[in-house]
Amino acid sequence: MPAMDYLSYHMYREILEEPQAVARMVEMEGDKIRGLARILRERDIDCIVIAARGTSDNAAQLAKYLFEYINGVPVSLAAPSIYTLYGARVKLDKALVLGVSQSGEGLDVVEVVKHAREAGAVTIGITNNEGSALARTAEHTIFCRAGEEKSVAATKTYVTQLMAFYMLSFEWAGRSDLLGELSRAPEYLDRVLTMEEGIREIVPRYRYMKECVVTGRGFNYSTALEAALKVKETCYVGSQPYSVADFLHGPIAIVEEGFPVFVIAPPGKAFPNFMELCTKLRTRKAETIVLSSAPEILDISTVPLRIPFELEEVLTPLVYITPMQLFSFHLALVKGFNPDRPRGLKKVTVTR
Amino acid sequence: MPAMDYLSYHMYREILEEPQAVARMVEMEGDKIRGLARILRERDIDCIVIAARGTSDNAAQLAKYLFEYINGVPVSLAAPSIYTLYGARVKLDKALVLGVSQSGEGLDVVEVVKHAREAGAVTIGITNNEGSALARTAEHTIFCRAGEEKSVAATKTYVTQLMAFYMLSFEWAGRSDLLGELSRAPEYLDRVLTMEEGIREIVPRYRYMKECVVTGRGFNYSTALEAALKVKETCYVGSQPYSVADFLHGPIAIVEEGFPVFVIAPPGKAFPNFMELCTKLRTRKAETIVLSSAPEILDISTVPLRIPFELEEVLTPLVYITPMQLFSFHLALVKGFNPDRPRGLKKVTVTR
Repeated sequence: MPAMDYLSYHMYREILEEPQAVARMVEMEGDKIRGLARILRERDIDCIVIAARGTSDNAAQLAKYLFEYINGVPVSLAAPSIYTLYGARVKLDKALVLGVSQSGEGLDVVEVVKHAREAGAVTIGITNNEGSALARTAEHTIFCRAGEEKSVAATKTYVTQLMAFYMLSFEWAGRSDLLGELSRAPEYLDRVLTMEEGIREIVPRYRYMKECVVTGRGFNYSTALEAALKVKETCYVGSQPYSVADFLHGPIAIVEEGFPVFVIAPPGKAFPNFMELCTKLRTRKAETIVLSSAPEILDISTVPLRIPFELEEVLTPLVYITPMQLFSFHLALVKGFNPDRPRGLKKVTVTR
Repeated sequence: MPAMDYLSYHMYREILEEPQAVARMVEMEGDKIRGLARILRERDIDCIVIAARGTSDNAAQLAKYLFEYINGVPVSLAAPSIYTLYGARVKLDKALVLGVSQSGEGLDVVEVVKHAREAGAVTIGITNNEGSALARTAEHTIFCRAGEEKSVAATKTYVTQLMAFYMLSFEWAGRSDLLGELSRAPEYLDRVLTMEEGIREIVPRYRYMKECVVTGRGFNYSTALEAALKVKETCYVGSQPYSVADFLHGPIAIVEEGFPVFVIAPPGKAFPNFMELCTKLRTRKAETIVLSSAPEILDISTVPLRIPFELEEVLTPLVYITPMQLFSFHLALVKGFNPDRPRGLKKVTVTR
C-alpha cells in the first residue's frame, strides 16, 4: 500500500496529529492549569480519586504513579460501581477527584464526579468534549484540545490525557525543571514518529501472531496496558499486559520458543528488571520486541525498536506509546482488518 | 481416584480447613479487632492504602469495595514500586495503611508499611505468620489463624484474609447486623463444601479446556480475579478475569460457540448484569458455568453450580470462592498435574 493511502485511515492521521495536539494543550490550557495548581496548593488535599474506563483508565495508571511520586499524595483508582451500583457515600471533603473521559459521556465517570462534588471534593473533568456531561458536572475542566477523534481506537486523546496529568502534577509541585522538559513534548513526539518506517518493515513478521505479552513497569506500566489494549482491539491478538515484576514471578513459565514479548524499557529505575527479563527470555529463545533508547538492551533483543533520544524516565510514557500505536495500526492492515472499525466496539461506552 | 486419596494433597486438606480457620479468627482475633476499630474511630482517617501482591491483592480488591461501601473511606491499592523503586515520600498522616501478605515476608509490602509508619499512618499487617517481617514492621497485626499453608496455591489464607477485612470493616462501622451474619461464616463454608461431589462430576468435561473467562462484578470482582488465578496456576489454563461491565463492552466479541465463561452471580445489585450476560452468551451458544443461588440464572446456564443458601451480597465473596478452589483442584488432577506444585511458582514471592 502506498504511504499516501494510510492517510485515508482516521487512526493513522490521528497518530500523526499527536505533536500538534500536545502543543495546543500547552498553549490553550496552560493558564487554566496554573490556576488549578494554585487552588490545589491552598486546599489541604489528602487523597486523589480518579474515575475512568478503558484507554482513559490506562492513562489514569500513569497519573497514579505521577501524583504519588511528584506530589506525594496517595491516589485511588475508583471502582465506579461502588457509586453507581451500590450508591456508597464516600468521605471526599479533602480529596481531589478527577473524572477522565474522551467523550465526556461515560455515565459512570460522570456519576462519580457528581457524587464527589456534593461531598465537597475539588473536582476536575479531563475530556476532549467541551459540551459534554462531564464538563457540565465537574467544577473545573481541562480540555484535551486533540480535535475530533474519529477512530474507535483512541490514540491522540490518550497522549493529551497524559499531557493533562503531567501539566497538572508539575505545576502543582512547582517543578519548573520538568515543565521545561515537558514544553519540548511536541518535538519529542515528532522525533518518535520518525520510527514509522522501521516499524512498517518489521510488522509483516507478526502476520500470524495470535497471542503476545506486553511488559512494562513503574511509570510505563500504563504504556504496557495501553499498548496491549491497542493490539487487542485493532488486531484481535490475545495480548496480555504485565508488570515485569509480576511477570518474572510465574507467568514467564508460559513462554516457549518464539513466543512474542514486547518490552517497554526506557532507561531509568526499572531498567535492571528489563535487562533481567530480556536475558531470561533470550535463553528461552523467545521473540523479544524491545522499545528503548539504551543500546545494551537493544543488543540482546530479537527485534530492537530504537527510540532516537533520551528522556527523563517520568516523561517516557508520553512518547513510548506512539510506536506501539503505529505498530497496531500497521499490523491491523497486514492482518486484513480495518483499524478504524474494530469488531464489537463502540466509540462511547455507557456503563451504569 | 478414591475420595480418601484426595486427602494426600495439601491443597485439598487446606480447602476443607476453611470453616475451622474462619472460626478461629472470630474467636482469637475478635477482641484485638474491636480494639483496632476503637482506634480508627478516634483517628480522623481520610484514606486507606492497601499493599499486597498476588492472591493477597485479590483479597485487597474486596477490601476496596468493603471500606468504601461500608466505611465511606476512599481506598487506594498501592503500587509498591512507587515506594521501593522510586522512593516516593507520600503524605499518609491521616491514612490507614494495610499490608497484606500470607507469609509476611513480601519485601515490597513490608517496605510500604515501613514508610507508612514513618509517615504517621495507622499501620496494620494482615498475615498468617506471627514471626514475620510484616508483623514486626506494622504497628498492629491481625493474624489469619489459618494454620500452616503448605500448598503453593493459596486457599484457606485467602478466605481468612477476607475474614480479617470483614471483621475490621464491620467493627469499625459498628454494624452489628452484619457482624451477626458474619459469625455464621463457618456454617456457610461447611454448607458450600457440600457442593464438592457435584463439582467433581462435571470437571472431566473441561479436561481439554485451554482458555476461559471468569466474570464477576462489584464485591465479587475479587472472586473473579482469584478464581481465574487459581485455574491459571494449578491447571495452566489461560483464564482471563473480567468485570462483567467491561466484558459486555467489547471482549464478549471473542466468545465463539462452546467458549467457556464462568459467571460468579450471587443475587444482589449486580445480578441484572449477569442475567444480561448469560442471555447473550446463550444466543452465542457459549458454555456458561454459573455459580449462584438464584434459579432464574441457573436455568439458563450450561452447567449450573447451585450455592445451597442465600446470603447478604456483601458477604458472598467469602463463600463463592470455595467452589472455584475445588474446581481448580479437581481439574488439575484430571489434567494430570500436581495441584500442590505449580510449575515455576514459589510460595514466597520476593519483589523489590
